[in-house]
Amino acid sequence: MRVRPGSSGSIDPLKGYTTPRTPRGLSSLAPAPPWHYASTALAIEFTADPVKTARFLPAELEATGDGRCAVYFADWQFATDDGEEYLDPVRSQYKETIFLIAAQYQGEPVAYCPFIFVDQDVSLMRGLVQGWPKQFGTVWITRAAALPSKAAPTETAGGKFGATLSVRDHRVVEARVTLQEVTERRPSPTFARGVNVRYFPTLEAGKHDQPPVHELVQLKSRNVQFSTIWTGDAALQIFDHPHLEIGDLAPTTVGAGFRFSFAFTVDDVVPLKDLRKTLVTSRD
Amino acid sequence: MRVRPGSSGSIDPLKGYTTPRTPRGLSSLAPAPPWHYASTALAIEFTADPVKTARFLPAELEATGDGRCAVYFADWQFATDDGEEYLDPVRSQYKETIFLIAAQYQGEPVAYCPFIFVDQDVSLMRGLVQGWPKQFGTVWITRAAALPSKAAPTETAGGKFGATLSVRDHRVVEARVTLQEVTERRPSPTFARGVNVRYFPTLEAGKHDQPPVHELVQLKSRNVQFSTIWTGDAALQIFDHPHLEIGDLAPTTVGAGFRFSFAFTVDDVVPLKDLRKTLVTSRD
Amino acid sequence: MRVRPGSSGSIDPLKGYTTPRTPRGLSSLAPAPPWHYASTALAIEFTADPVKTARFLPAELEATGDGRCAVYFADWQFATDDGEEYLDPVRSQYKETIFLIAAQYQGEPVAYCPFIFVDQDVSLMRGLVQGWPKQFGTVWITRAAALPSKAAPTETAGGKFGATLSVRDHRVVEARVTLQEVTERRPSPTFARGVNVRYFPTLEAGKHDQPPVHELVQLKSRNVQFSTIWTGDAALQIFDHPHLEIGDLAPTTVGAGFRFSFAFTVDDVVPLKDLRKTLVTSRD
Amino acid sequence: MRVRPGSSGSIDPLKGYTTPRTPRGLSSLAPAPPWHYASTALAIEFTADPVKTARFLPAELEATGDGRCAVYFADWQFATDDGEEYLDPVRSQYKETIFLIAAQYQGEPVAYCPFIFVDQDVSLMRGLVQGWPKQFGTVWITRAAALPSKAAPTETAGGKFGATLSVRDHRVVEARVTLQEVTERRPSPTFARGVNVRYFPTLEAGKHDQPPVHELVQLKSRNVQFSTIWTGDAALQIFDHPHLEIGDLAPTTVGAGFRFSFAFTVDDVVPLKDLRKTLVTSRD
Repeated sequence: MRVRPGSSGSIDPLKGYTTPRTPRGLSSLAPAPPWHYASTALAIEFTADPVKTARFLPAELEATGDGRCAVYFADWQFATDDGEEYLDPVRSQYKETIFLIAAQYQGEPVAYCPFIFVDQDVSLMRGLVQGWPKQFGTVWITRAAALPSKAAPTETAGGKFGATLSVRDHRVVEARVTLQEVTERRPSPTFARGVNVRYFPTLEAGKHDQPPVHELVQLKSRNVQFSTIWTGDAALQIFDHPHLEIGDLAPTTVGAGFRFSFAFTVDDVVPLKDLRKTLVTSRD
Repeated sequence: MRVRPGSSGSIDPLKGYTTPRTPRGLSSLAPAPPWHYASTALAIEFTADPVKTARFLPAELEATGDGRCAVYFADWQFATDDGEEYLDPVRSQYKETIFLIAAQYQGEPVAYCPFIFVDQDVSLMRGLVQGWPKQFGTVWITRAAALPSKAAPTETAGGKFGATLSVRDHRVVEARVTLQEVTERRPSPTFARGVNVRYFPTLEAGKHDQPPVHELVQLKSRNVQFSTIWTGDAALQIFDHPHLEIGDLAPTTVGAGFRFSFAFTVDDVVPLKDLRKTLVTSRD
Repeated sequence: MRVRPGSSGSIDPLKGYTTPRTPRGLSSLAPAPPWHYASTALAIEFTADPVKTARFLPAELEATGDGRCAVYFADWQFATDDGEEYLDPVRSQYKETIFLIAAQYQGEPVAYCPFIFVDQDVSLMRGLVQGWPKQFGTVWITRAAALPSKAAPTETAGGKFGATLSVRDHRVVEARVTLQEVTERRPSPTFARGVNVRYFPTLEAGKHDQPPVHELVQLKSRNVQFSTIWTGDAALQIFDHPHLEIGDLAPTTVGAGFRFSFAFTVDDVVPLKDLRKTLVTSRD
Repeated sequence: MRVRPGSSGSIDPLKGYTTPRTPRGLSSLAPAPPWHYASTALAIEFTADPVKTARFLPAELEATGDGRCAVYFADWQFATDDGEEYLDPVRSQYKETIFLIAAQYQGEPVAYCPFIFVDQDVSLMRGLVQGWPKQFGTVWITRAAALPSKAAPTETAGGKFGATLSVRDHRVVEARVTLQEVTERRPSPTFARGVNVRYFPTLEAGKHDQPPVHELVQLKSRNVQFSTIWTGDAALQIFDHPHLEIGDLAPTTVGAGFRFSFAFTVDDVVPLKDLRKTLVTSRD
């Protein structure tokens, strides 16, 4: 791929990784990477109707045929290299629900995200840049207590954890995990093999279906760390929503549940394929 | 105190510890005690202007003269005996900021709460019943990560934690604690010696200042447990608010910070003194 | 009713109509009455199962036998005499959903409120004082546009308005009204004849069912004004909620819908009957 | 500009104007245009430091030299052609604060938006597509009452309206307008001449400053309607925010205030200039 100097000879006086871009570059909704993340998560493996789940995949991915999915509920903190955003936690904390469908890309196992819900705009913006199809949802996740109490579970065998997702005033997901034992196994499908579609449409009349950004990408993270992983029995319900096709992912079988913490850093993504139907070759 | 049968001979068909009281008693905003609580908290000891802090005390409490206060930021889960509310966490979780002023009652050290802010109605209602003067506020508290990350502190020496309070769109408190060492000492003043004023006004014309409930009470909890307590340096700012007298508690000195978990159960309160100006002695 | 001076000889240094009561009395969650209200409302008359609705009534009220109810969705602004709270609207605006059941008290038609939901703490507190069993809910109500647009209805025949209620992440009510004509008739049952139960429990062990405040009251308002009232067809759905008995009010028939504005002032309530089982007659 | 068929021969099985793109295309956060809007707005003209405001402009725009700006607070409803989203208002309603700076583009007066704040994700997404640099903020705007009341102004001379903006727990703007008379004049600068920058970054390492979308566009709307426009005295305060450069727009003089309703439709935007530094000319 060759590039040539842009027609814009003027120096851009505005700074910022995302909008709003401002004179000093301090106001950008999402700051420039690297983005450091730390999370405690609850995850449940399940299968859904293989035909319906396959329909959620972009053409470049192949279905596994078994309808394997996972849902993750995560309580995040985020920071930049020197930002210490977690000290003013409204800037750092958010909760998220992530659906992943197992798939294959060129014969390799990958995970594709049909739906993801967060509760902060900064996370939504970072997500769009990575190709996560984020929108707002209300996520609640049981926390472990450090002390035995009827008010909370502890992170031990028998500890019961719940998580819920609501979207635009409708309860959409209810999940429960009862811890049984420590495991080496991570839930599958997993973020580590996430393939996303970066997509940004145009508004120009007649071109609403000609997005300037439509790209298959491989997620990339570094400094990935996992805590002890607990696994156990799980229950999962996905309810129909009048304006989301999420009911198509209703579980046909529910597998293992997991609880763990993880941390990682993101400042890259791997372009796999340009999906635009028409490519601009010249501006003349 | 003697009682006589009420004039109401009919059996009350409605059930519930608080409103709304309904046929099956399942809808009550606050369920009947016991209430089990588990929390992780950040606390900071500080002093404020002794004259101003003394003015916040009810007449029955004596000021300590040194303006000693503490502010607590707590991330709670709550449940009833068999409710397991923490499995549907929107029913159980809330965040809270609590101010306490050191005082004396009949020569004994106590703590009095001038302001307390929560983010859930269920907690607000339980609080009113206990004499906590709760109202809504937005509270954020740094969480500890299980793994080393730039995105979060760990619970170790050097770990930095922040907390903030905003009320009706105004930032009111910014707090930071840097952990240094484990301590046996608990922050002071403390809930354990809380003296509250239960207060519920009437709306009947001419009687707006004759509340049917105006009572000094001693808080009571059982099954109190504390985790390891970390202490360290603290920073604290309290900003003026146009509709709260909270600026009168602005710190003159900031003392130690603390981080710890605790858990306890509440189903009782000790009446200390009826503060009503006029007492109904007869209904004839 | 005779009274005697309270045992509290000291002058109360704290001021405020409700908690928090503070030195200058400026921090009270609900300010002292009078409370002025202005609202635009959508209302729907419906009937529910007469047996189930009757069970929601306090013993002192008689059921009408026909299960008549109404639900109101109201977009409020509130102010005190000189407060002009509407100029800092976070202090003034709130949205509310109110259920009323038609009943009789001593042979006169009245309205009883089994459930009411608001989205601001100040409104919740004022409500508790009046005997409204308020809790939090998320309320949305279509607004009329001043200009013809596909984005909004106008207040004319054919104008379609919707309203929804969600409670703790569950959609509970969906309502629609299509305006047809102007009417002189107000929806029934109506606030104007509201009979509430003021209720505030105690926490003292062994007395959880002996509330110091348990009182049947008649709502009272003055300066009541109504705008032009539009009426038309209505649709109404009430869904089950896991922690509310609101499904017992599911409509068996849906009557007329209404849209109107109204304004009034509240600073009084009429005590009808003390419902406490045991009355304190002496403190000796 | 010529195009050639994309390298992607496969048919895209996913539908939707924005992410998430799904099998039936019903889940897209922002639906496909046209987008119909209806709003009631409060606007204030002001000037800020001309040097500071000029620095917010993209290189292609020229400053007017006088620091002219306007701030708009708008209460919106939105719908698609047949969606009637306003009947489920959580899908349709949002509140917004918009800052505009007067500027020139190729000698013509235009308006540039340095900051804009909304409270719904659907609006945020539609905004990004149009080049509005949207992020989340909490917006409150006084509503007019249909009836005279101390609780609300009426839309008449002397009617007082307020509006506020808070961002991430900090109050940022406080505004007031007192209506005096009807005017033919619309506030200036105005949306009608809005020039935005569409911007979407890449995350690929080494290319964080090479956005695939960086484009100067002219906003375009149709079916624009205005109600009667009221004008009057205004007051405006803009406060510093720790993470926004919004304090640079603090008013040096405050001009007229306005209140009006307007409605319009958007389904197009006019590309003015590609601002990318480097343009892809070939993928070989």
